[in-house]
Amino acid sequence: MNSPSTDFDKFFNPTRIAIVGVSTGDYKFGGSSFLHKLLDCGYPGKIYPVNPRSGEIKGLKIYPDLISLPEVPDLAIVCVAAGLVPAILEACARIGLRHIHIMTSGFKETDESEGRLLEDRITALAAAHDLRIIGPNCMGPYCPSSKLTAWGAIPGLTGSVGIISQSGGLTQRLTEYLASLGIGVNKAVSFGNAAVLDSTDFLEYMAADDGIQVIVMYLESVKDARKLLRMAQSISRSKPIILWKGGDSRAGAATAVSHTGALAGSQEIWTAFYRQTGVIRVQSLNEWADTIMAFSLLPAPRGNGVFIIGGGGGNSVTISDAFSRQGFEVPPLSEDTMNFLRRSVPTAGSIAGNPLDMWRTFTDSVYLAEILELGYQDPAISNIVIDHLIARKAFHFANALDPTPQVIDYLTRRQPAKPTVLTIDTDGGDSELAVAGVRLRTRFCRAGFPAYPSADRAARALGHLYRYHAKIP
Amino acid sequence: MNSPSTDFDKFFNPTRIAIVGVSTGDYKFGGSSFLHKLLDCGYPGKIYPVNPRSGEIKGLKIYPDLISLPEVPDLAIVCVAAGLVPAILEACARIGLRHIHIMTSGFKETDESEGRLLEDRITALAAAHDLRIIGPNCMGPYCPSSKLTAWGAIPGLTGSVGIISQSGGLTQRLTEYLASLGIGVNKAVSFGNAAVLDSTDFLEYMAADDGIQVIVMYLESVKDARKLLRMAQSISRSKPIILWKGGDSRAGAATAVSHTGALAGSQEIWTAFYRQTGVIRVQSLNEWADTIMAFSLLPAPRGNGVFIIGGGGGNSVTISDAFSRQGFEVPPLSEDTMNFLRRSVPTAGSIAGNPLDMWRTFTDSVYLAEILELGYQDPAISNIVIDHLIARKAFHFANALDPTPQVIDYLTRRQPAKPTVLTIDTDGGDSELAVAGVRLRTRFCRAGFPAYPSADRAARALGHLYRYHAKIP
Repeated sequence: MNSPSTDFDKFFNPTRIAIVGVSTGDYKFGGSSFLHKLLDCGYPGKIYPVNPRSGEIKGLKIYPDLISLPEVPDLAIVCVAAGLVPAILEACARIGLRHIHIMTSGFKETDESEGRLLEDRITALAAAHDLRIIGPNCMGPYCPSSKLTAWGAIPGLTGSVGIISQSGGLTQRLTEYLASLGIGVNKAVSFGNAAVLDSTDFLEYMAADDGIQVIVMYLESVKDARKLLRMAQSISRSKPIILWKGGDSRAGAATAVSHTGALAGSQEIWTAFYRQTGVIRVQSLNEWADTIMAFSLLPAPRGNGVFIIGGGGGNSVTISDAFSRQGFEVPPLSEDTMNFLRRSVPTAGSIAGNPLDMWRTFTDSVYLAEILELGYQDPAISNIVIDHLIARKAFHFANALDPTPQVIDYLTRRQPAKPTVLTIDTDGGDSELAVAGVRLRTRFCRAGFPAYPSADRAARALGHLYRYHAKIP
Repeated sequence: MNSPSTDFDKFFNPTRIAIVGVSTGDYKFGGSSFLHKLLDCGYPGKIYPVNPRSGEIKGLKIYPDLISLPEVPDLAIVCVAAGLVPAILEACARIGLRHIHIMTSGFKETDESEGRLLEDRITALAAAHDLRIIGPNCMGPYCPSSKLTAWGAIPGLTGSVGIISQSGGLTQRLTEYLASLGIGVNKAVSFGNAAVLDSTDFLEYMAADDGIQVIVMYLESVKDARKLLRMAQSISRSKPIILWKGGDSRAGAATAVSHTGALAGSQEIWTAFYRQTGVIRVQSLNEWADTIMAFSLLPAPRGNGVFIIGGGGGNSVTISDAFSRQGFEVPPLSEDTMNFLRRSVPTAGSIAGNPLDMWRTFTDSVYLAEILELGYQDPAISNIVIDHLIARKAFHFANALDPTPQVIDYLTRRQPAKPTVLTIDTDGGDSELAVAGVRLRTRFCRAGFPAYPSADRAARALGHLYRYHAKIP
């Protein structure tokens, strides 16, 4: 097989797509829902629906088979029943259509002999006819810049993240999550059972793609672990790879067998994999998104010293705990910084130092900018965390102003060389607080400053960034 | 000193409160903000503002000193400058006012000799005059049923949680958080530097209080660690104690010194403490609230088998991983359960088993109730997790109905003896999704079924509940 470097472009930038297996009856998951979504999101290329019954759908002519199409599509999305898939692949080969996404499930993941035989047949046909096949049992390629967004965030947001995944559902969710915070996805692929193309093929492709700065993976299994290890070792030196390995536990591994039909491998093997490759290990959707945000937006930290700016004694203590648990130091500040703080912080009810416990930072953007400037100058400090408070009834100050616009202005002008993140705690059952929190997070993230809903999550994401750049396994 | 069992009632159910040190100038934190808040929340007792300059505030006469009051208050809230506190305590003793909350800061936590001497003077005066003193440097008592809610959630929600805390800020936040999800607080106390009364005094009081079912603590330090250990060992057998120890890390411990003026103790000591007492260890605000919710709402699990109900292969795998990491099994279901599932689950695209990967559970409340019923009957299952999906554009189903009202109806009628929780993932920057998620969480929690924003958080909270009842340290 050729190197995927340009060959895969047809998956992500197809100008003509055949959707094989569109039902003309009720809207349901499959070929017709893919077709509807592509039209909804304004896909500008040609779409050729295929179904032996012919007719018309959404104003498009339905062709009875691939042979009848007026031109050769760049990509086929195959949504027919599992037993019909081999015949469709043969038809693809006949017309020279080599890029195929098989959405259909019912193969190895069923753990039944019929499914296994059918999947082996797919692998054999691909080898015989030099077909590029994504799947089966997956959602396939996704690319906002081509408006190829039949799943995932619609219309999506283009950016510098590349996603390689064995879960369409988690990837769909991740693209939504990231887009809503202003982080764009360059290309994503949900590749399911990997009967032909596996994670390593997409990794090679995305490593060579200059539009992709951060590579993100969700894997349940891998066909050639040594190859993945070798590639990840080399690629992760220049492009961070953030991997969520599903099936980390015995129960999860057993489930993975029936999800993508492959052995997940033991936890020990994967622990060694992370250590040997420098790949970043995450274990949940939020950790995944939080970490992607840090790698997408922040400069490399030059050290593990963190300056924590906020108010409240308990907050100061517990934010320090959270960052310490992730390997950060909360070092004493320089004499210059302390001299300024001592002048401006009252003796009682506040604490001048690191962490800085000073409620004024919540409401006075000019004061906060002065404090930040000290932090950016202070040689002991390599990272800054700003705890942001949303003023509300329970607090004992009257007319607190929201300093957010001024703080964002300052940070945007300043473009600090030291990673600067915010924590905005708004969890619970208060929907007004939740909306205020989401809006604030979005504003800061879109301005380039990751804002996390808790100190733990901020510390964990920044910890991954620090250890990656410091080459600490 | 007498046992606190009834003596402390005056702290939480005072009918007459003196606020010593109300400024009549601009609204600011201190005596006047306490007074405003008490009036705002409809405190029904008498309030006596005290300030040598006399005058009037919010229609209330200001008395020049405690001696001039027409009757002896049950409680004094002392908000004068630190140096004036000893004289106020002497005045309290003179009129027989023995329950005192000192809000003022500027004592041991300043780490300066003046503050240390002043705090020693408080301790000495309390011993000499048999005074009950909360503080200094704290927010004091909080009790929604008495409308004593000058801080924290206002007006608050009464319930069965008791909170003993060395952080007013974190407790304020916790009461808000819990109230918004329908979990009420019986009594809370923020006790600061503990110059006189310490956590053990409040623990004894709340252990004997039949209105309190779950005891919740935030501690940075303790004066008599052996006493706390002995009491916690005994109390936690019948009432769960959920403790967040601030200053867990070196940096956090150093900060705790300047917050509440006391040594936090090493992490090793506290690890041993948790192991020996059965006290539940939490390390963040969300873990605290999540765990309180589980202990407040759920029955004791009879085992560690969990049935995971949801849809999506990646979700199924990773939710299994999350529960496995917390010591749960995801066991095979009984033959009866499997026979039902095999009949109703299509071969391709779903997985019949545990976890159950079946999108229909997201939209069909009748089907979900049938599945739940099987889980409640299945002997391998002791806990149930329902993954709840909010339908939206990215998904490939057309007219999904929200089954929430029917699901809540069923659960409310059914009153399952097996802990049943929900996960509702709505994180990110989408404010509509966030609001929908918060509203759903609130509805389920208020109906008595904890709903968590992620599988990790659900698993962690349920893990604490399981280990507590199974007596696994």
